[in-house]
Amino acid sequence: MAEKADIGVTGLAVMGRNLARNFARRGHTVAVHNRTPQRTRDLVDQFGAEGAFVPAESPEEFVAALQRPRRLVVMVKAGDPTDAVIDEFAALLEPGDIIMDGGNAHFDDTRRREAALRERGVHFVGSGISGGEEGALHGPSIMPGGSAESYRTLGPLLESISAHVDGEPCCTHVGTDGAGHFVKMVHNGIEYADMQLIAEAYDLLRRAGGLRPEQAAEVFARWNSGRLDSYLIGITADILAHADASGKPFVDVVLDQAEQKGTGRWTVHTALDLGVPVPGIAEAVFARSLSGHADLREAAQGLAGPTVGAGEVAGLAEDVEQALYASKIVSYAQGWNMIAAGAAQYGWDIDLAAMASIWRGGCIIRAAFLDRIRAAFRANPALPTLLVDPEFAAELDAAQDAWRRVVATAARLGVPAPGFSAALAYYDSLRAQRLPAALVQAQRDLFGAHTYRRTDRDGVFHTRWDTDRHEESAD
Amino acid sequence: MAEKADIGVTGLAVMGRNLARNFARRGHTVAVHNRTPQRTRDLVDQFGAEGAFVPAESPEEFVAALQRPRRLVVMVKAGDPTDAVIDEFAALLEPGDIIMDGGNAHFDDTRRREAALRERGVHFVGSGISGGEEGALHGPSIMPGGSAESYRTLGPLLESISAHVDGEPCCTHVGTDGAGHFVKMVHNGIEYADMQLIAEAYDLLRRAGGLRPEQAAEVFARWNSGRLDSYLIGITADILAHADASGKPFVDVVLDQAEQKGTGRWTVHTALDLGVPVPGIAEAVFARSLSGHADLREAAQGLAGPTVGAGEVAGLAEDVEQALYASKIVSYAQGWNMIAAGAAQYGWDIDLAAMASIWRGGCIIRAAFLDRIRAAFRANPALPTLLVDPEFAAELDAAQDAWRRVVATAARLGVPAPGFSAALAYYDSLRAQRLPAALVQAQRDLFGAHTYRRTDRDGVFHTRWDTDRHEESAD
Repeated sequence: MAEKADIGVTGLAVMGRNLARNFARRGHTVAVHNRTPQRTRDLVDQFGAEGAFVPAESPEEFVAALQRPRRLVVMVKAGDPTDAVIDEFAALLEPGDIIMDGGNAHFDDTRRREAALRERGVHFVGSGISGGEEGALHGPSIMPGGSAESYRTLGPLLESISAHVDGEPCCTHVGTDGAGHFVKMVHNGIEYADMQLIAEAYDLLRRAGGLRPEQAAEVFARWNSGRLDSYLIGITADILAHADASGKPFVDVVLDQAEQKGTGRWTVHTALDLGVPVPGIAEAVFARSLSGHADLREAAQGLAGPTVGAGEVAGLAEDVEQALYASKIVSYAQGWNMIAAGAAQYGWDIDLAAMASIWRGGCIIRAAFLDRIRAAFRANPALPTLLVDPEFAAELDAAQDAWRRVVATAARLGVPAPGFSAALAYYDSLRAQRLPAALVQAQRDLFGAHTYRRTDRDGVFHTRWDTDRHEESAD
Repeated sequence: MAEKADIGVTGLAVMGRNLARNFARRGHTVAVHNRTPQRTRDLVDQFGAEGAFVPAESPEEFVAALQRPRRLVVMVKAGDPTDAVIDEFAALLEPGDIIMDGGNAHFDDTRRREAALRERGVHFVGSGISGGEEGALHGPSIMPGGSAESYRTLGPLLESISAHVDGEPCCTHVGTDGAGHFVKMVHNGIEYADMQLIAEAYDLLRRAGGLRPEQAAEVFARWNSGRLDSYLIGITADILAHADASGKPFVDVVLDQAEQKGTGRWTVHTALDLGVPVPGIAEAVFARSLSGHADLREAAQGLAGPTVGAGEVAGLAEDVEQALYASKIVSYAQGWNMIAAGAAQYGWDIDLAAMASIWRGGCIIRAAFLDRIRAAFRANPALPTLLVDPEFAAELDAAQDAWRRVVATAARLGVPAPGFSAALAYYDSLRAQRLPAALVQAQRDLFGAHTYRRTDRDGVFHTRWDTDRHEESAD
């Protein structure tokens, strides 16, 4: 009888295979299974020397190979395939066993699955995993939800394969049921916003600053050694410096139509439902979809641009760095507000500082900046928005003149900067003493009798716009 | 035996009651029914002299009172109450009869209900009705979906009670199944965007232009006699001119927290699903939710503003008129693109010019401007975006310098203008020869092997960023 496996992975496409190898390389005995057994055999043939694999041809054999309580990781396509695999394995498991879904599930699906399996005594752990193929193999950022009890059994294994920063694992128990997939979704929304802001910065450097791609690459490389130090800034420098086999800058040969897989859309959907404003993420999602409307863009080529042409704006790079940094603070502030709102809505006890901590390594948005966010929430776990953390507030103060100049320059020169301007508008809205929302509310009362509240006394009121405009109580 | 009724209305809260009165006042015999019969009796007692009402105490009596094919209008709360009433009445109807839902249903629900009733041979007509209580009584804008056959029977009655502009009814058959509720949803999204743009214009006049509310009222009144002539601009002038019993400008005593009932959110949700960028509507929805976060706003009061204070910017009102008009064109362009995308997605044959036509009267966004949109789509039914209609394009050209100045001024002075700047960024994005989406797509290829297309040849490619950066075909 072979040694029982510490953990099992079913679904051995590249993500599943790399996770299984990561477990094995960290000294865990890993049962491996795939619907078509050839893939299982290939994994063992190619990578068997990396550690202890227990190949299984059937679900029964796979389950039998696992130590109890069983820890079983499902790495198949989100949606129906995930349900099918869960159903198949759940029938073979016993109370106390754990199924983890490491795919990109929607947190609503995870909540539904967790509730169904809980009825049968099986722990279901929806877990966000960020870092792509390389992360899965070398150390991803891992965001498990599910019960605290399941984390006691499964967590140590996950922590052992996750990225580590300053000796700390980029993995923690996020919260119950769908909390892990929820924060993974927000992570992806923030990633969309980050990428959009970087794209705007590049576009401005190029079209308003007159820089060639390789010059813009140098600017990004310089930024990457400062407070913007991050994976995405680093790869931007690499991409902009890359010349294609054609001899042209690579960024100029790539078709300018960005695609998306949907998690950005989910983030905006959910933010709308929670009533959390996330304009930075929404603008990023819309910018991608706009870029893909080739027909519309083609038709609009004749539209008039500004009468001043884009040229070499002096001092632009320094201003853009400030605008990028300030806008980044704003979009992370929106993301963290969304996590807090999700936690309140679904009853998750999410440690906001820990979320910054586990995103410092392994994932796409890893950045020095996250240390700062962690520090902000450690200093004040009830921080209502990152913007008012004293250090961030001081940086925003220092950045704002440049940020305003960049938004104004973009408008003047006709270089679209939806992310920068949405972030600035959010900042100015939040700090406004009075918002013109009062006018909107008055309009709603006039045309729909939707009532209003007052600044000077409690109550709900309606003005009789149809008669002599006297005010009535509408409590 | 009493005369059979032409049409019946069940659900006699204010909207249903006013619709029933409208039918009666137009000479139709109207059966009226309410779950609690007192309301039915009250209607006949108070308004019986306005026309021919046939009060019914039970559903059976109500249905028996209707001519065949029966035309039955349901005016109850959206959601479960609507389903309950439909189920109750569907059991009493016969093939060929028509149930119209005049509530604010989501078009997905309408599609589901239409399909279920079609199986039983009953026509289900989800119909958007805009104009609030007053519109329902005096002539709303009506947007019926459902079968063309049902419209032949029901349409003439609806047209007779709708608003009329230049002798034409503000009612037409929008398209099959959920098309009516879909365009009503988009109408509301456009309404949100319009209100936000007006709010920003007011805020700028006041904070950057130094105008008092009554002075701003004069500006809006002046605008209302020009190309911005519309219901919303008109009521804005009225509201800004109104002084409260306290003696203060009314807009200053209203709490600046705008509320929303959800159709704006639905619009953004649906636009995300359809892949249609609607940043103008999204910014409006987010601006409302931001205004309601009193805790966040309170915390952010200490954030630094610009070093230049807001003051009296010369020539601002004229610039703001241009910015408002240009931004309005953009948000209507987004709305119409969304209608076209919905029609393509759901197989609706929607006449885009007719949508402008039926919104010219009765509804909240009624405006002279809609004549222009109608003309644009009549001249070119395949217009890819309103922005490229020759007349609108020329106006945008004429407006853009002022529009850019306004966005720049708002950024510089710290007056939030998310709607104006999102509209400008959309305009500049659509007309851009190249977008930095190419960089986004390159990043996606680098970190996730998501591949890219090229500007110079067909195919799908991946660059081996992990090795020597050679390009591979990924077809």
